[in-house]
Amino acid sequence: MNISKFVMPEVIFGRGSLSQIGDSALRIGASKVFVVSDEDVINAGWVDKAKHYLHASGLETVTYAALTTNPKDYEVDEGLLRYLESGCDAIVVVGGGSPTDVAKAIAILATNGGVLRDYEGINKVTRPLPPMVIAPSTAGAGSEVTQFAIIVDSKRQLKMSIISKSLVPDIAIVDPELLRTKDSALAAATGIDAFTHGIETYVSLAATPMTEIHSLKCIELASQYLRKAVNDRSDMDANTNMSMASLTGGLALSNAILGATHAMTHQVDGLLDKHHGESNAAILPHVMEFNLPACPEKFRDIAIAMGEQVRGMTVEEAARQSIVAVNNLLSDIGLHQGLGEIGLPLDAIDRLSHNALNDACLVTNPRPASYEQIAEIFHKAM
Amino acid sequence: MNISKFVMPEVIFGRGSLSQIGDSALRIGASKVFVVSDEDVINAGWVDKAKHYLHASGLETVTYAALTTNPKDYEVDEGLLRYLESGCDAIVVVGGGSPTDVAKAIAILATNGGVLRDYEGINKVTRPLPPMVIAPSTAGAGSEVTQFAIIVDSKRQLKMSIISKSLVPDIAIVDPELLRTKDSALAAATGIDAFTHGIETYVSLAATPMTEIHSLKCIELASQYLRKAVNDRSDMDANTNMSMASLTGGLALSNAILGATHAMTHQVDGLLDKHHGESNAAILPHVMEFNLPACPEKFRDIAIAMGEQVRGMTVEEAARQSIVAVNNLLSDIGLHQGLGEIGLPLDAIDRLSHNALNDACLVTNPRPASYEQIAEIFHKAM
Repeated sequence: MNISKFVMPEVIFGRGSLSQIGDSALRIGASKVFVVSDEDVINAGWVDKAKHYLHASGLETVTYAALTTNPKDYEVDEGLLRYLESGCDAIVVVGGGSPTDVAKAIAILATNGGVLRDYEGINKVTRPLPPMVIAPSTAGAGSEVTQFAIIVDSKRQLKMSIISKSLVPDIAIVDPELLRTKDSALAAATGIDAFTHGIETYVSLAATPMTEIHSLKCIELASQYLRKAVNDRSDMDANTNMSMASLTGGLALSNAILGATHAMTHQVDGLLDKHHGESNAAILPHVMEFNLPACPEKFRDIAIAMGEQVRGMTVEEAARQSIVAVNNLLSDIGLHQGLGEIGLPLDAIDRLSHNALNDACLVTNPRPASYEQIAEIFHKAM
Repeated sequence: MNISKFVMPEVIFGRGSLSQIGDSALRIGASKVFVVSDEDVINAGWVDKAKHYLHASGLETVTYAALTTNPKDYEVDEGLLRYLESGCDAIVVVGGGSPTDVAKAIAILATNGGVLRDYEGINKVTRPLPPMVIAPSTAGAGSEVTQFAIIVDSKRQLKMSIISKSLVPDIAIVDPELLRTKDSALAAATGIDAFTHGIETYVSLAATPMTEIHSLKCIELASQYLRKAVNDRSDMDANTNMSMASLTGGLALSNAILGATHAMTHQVDGLLDKHHGESNAAILPHVMEFNLPACPEKFRDIAIAMGEQVRGMTVEEAARQSIVAVNNLLSDIGLHQGLGEIGLPLDAIDRLSHNALNDACLVTNPRPASYEQIAEIFHKAM
């Protein structure tokens, strides 16, 4: 018996689709909406625009935006208090992966009680969450369609993975216009996060034909459009295609989980609080190198999806071409840096390697990895 | 502004997944389940098996199975009476496209009232339907995931298209084991229906990157596995891949609609009551011929997805190769026959051509078609 499941929210995609946010919130039964965002997105004017549409649909709003680069447990606790005292009956996010994951975590605690660590792991959420609409402001995390919430445990200094079908929002509104106001560095970091989702899900042990088509589309679009999106932030064709890369990557990761790269970056991000895309970029090529012997045909497919010419090559040669292509992409968008340059101290590797062994994402990595092997990858990625 | 939407139910896929039907019905809030099926599926033992799982989950069941090849309005009316007097609070289908569409139509009338013609067209359903779980017994229609119900209007002798997001069921359980008991003729007819969904959705004016990946996967799998599935009904690898072809085709058609082939077969099926796959097979190559000038690159992609060698060919030559490949596939599975052989009288073409002009599926055909052009395609397909 080999049974797989595939779930996704209703998706509304396209330039100008933020205009659907009021109607969408009405459809999920909202009367007073808790809007989760961050200061950058507010300053760019997107929250005012979303509130305009929400108010036009007759809805009241309360905004919570005291958030930082990575989603933190204490930001969830503060948000929960604000949500409960607000009298809101639905949650709307206008923001990137961090506000989205904070909003999902608030939703869990609001109806299920307890503390976040109670829900770490798979399928621990039992009661329905408040209805949610998510409008992502970045093209990367894909959290608007996933059954994941990844939250920093500030005491343990690591990211907890909470995985439950209840975390799939009701409606995702993916409007590439929101990307206009992001700078090149953020476009690069978030874009490489999406790209990493494509790679890790395609070789995941939980991949299915349904997830594989989304993984390959994500890889293909990011390979073709990420450089353009980084070079010219006003290139709306590139932005739209990167939004689709993020969306397809999110659908793939929600249903096929990830691999060793994310098992390792979850530890780095908990310690350093740098952008998740930077740690992914530093580790991904080395994990590909490690995983390649487990599924060379799949890495050949990745090379082909990246536009590499592999005619006449052996499977192994073609597979290795995927790593060459990834390193070229990282160089071209200014993310070819080691973990040391990001700020990781050598003496942290021991603890991080132990913690990575317990991360849910390691289970679906195509090649089993021991403590020693993970520590070796960390050293190579320095 | 170019906004697209994509919706799908939760999907449980794989051999043995029928075992999830009791738990799935519980999850959607059922206490007493209205099981819709047909005599063939009952005789093959699948309904007893499904009821075993439903009863094991503590649910009561009432079965309705007085159905025929195409889903008919009077079967819906009869089913509605039985549903209303049964006291059931959820609908479960174990069957092919026809029982599924009858069940969806019963669901519409049960909570929305009126008659079916009130809901013909797009977005006419306003009230929520009873919760539904669908377990398809064929690999073809894909109705287990679509927002479509296609019902024969027996007075007008045509198929009505009812399109509404409310028609997407809550859960689709796609268990390839159920295909074991279907004979080769039905495997061929249903398989070519799925394949036609792949072709028509890929060139549809409403196609998006999200639907295109599903269309191409459908075309690729059907090209590779339909012959095997027809030749050896016990080949479970072929059956599983055809189930996936049907599923991806259904997701594509639900979100990209179809084209002229279906606009025309809906009329033929309303008149002749033959299997929908046979009429698709007779018309598809001629509609491809007609549509090719509108989007030759897309037909080249189709040729490639079908495994044709197109290296060194012009776009036009490569595109034409898709029609050669389709005709070969139809010959190999015994479906290379004209509408005349199926039983269509020449003098029906005039009326059928007029009716096809009003079918919702014609709107997304990549090349506009006049009455004269549709009549000409009908004549070529005789």
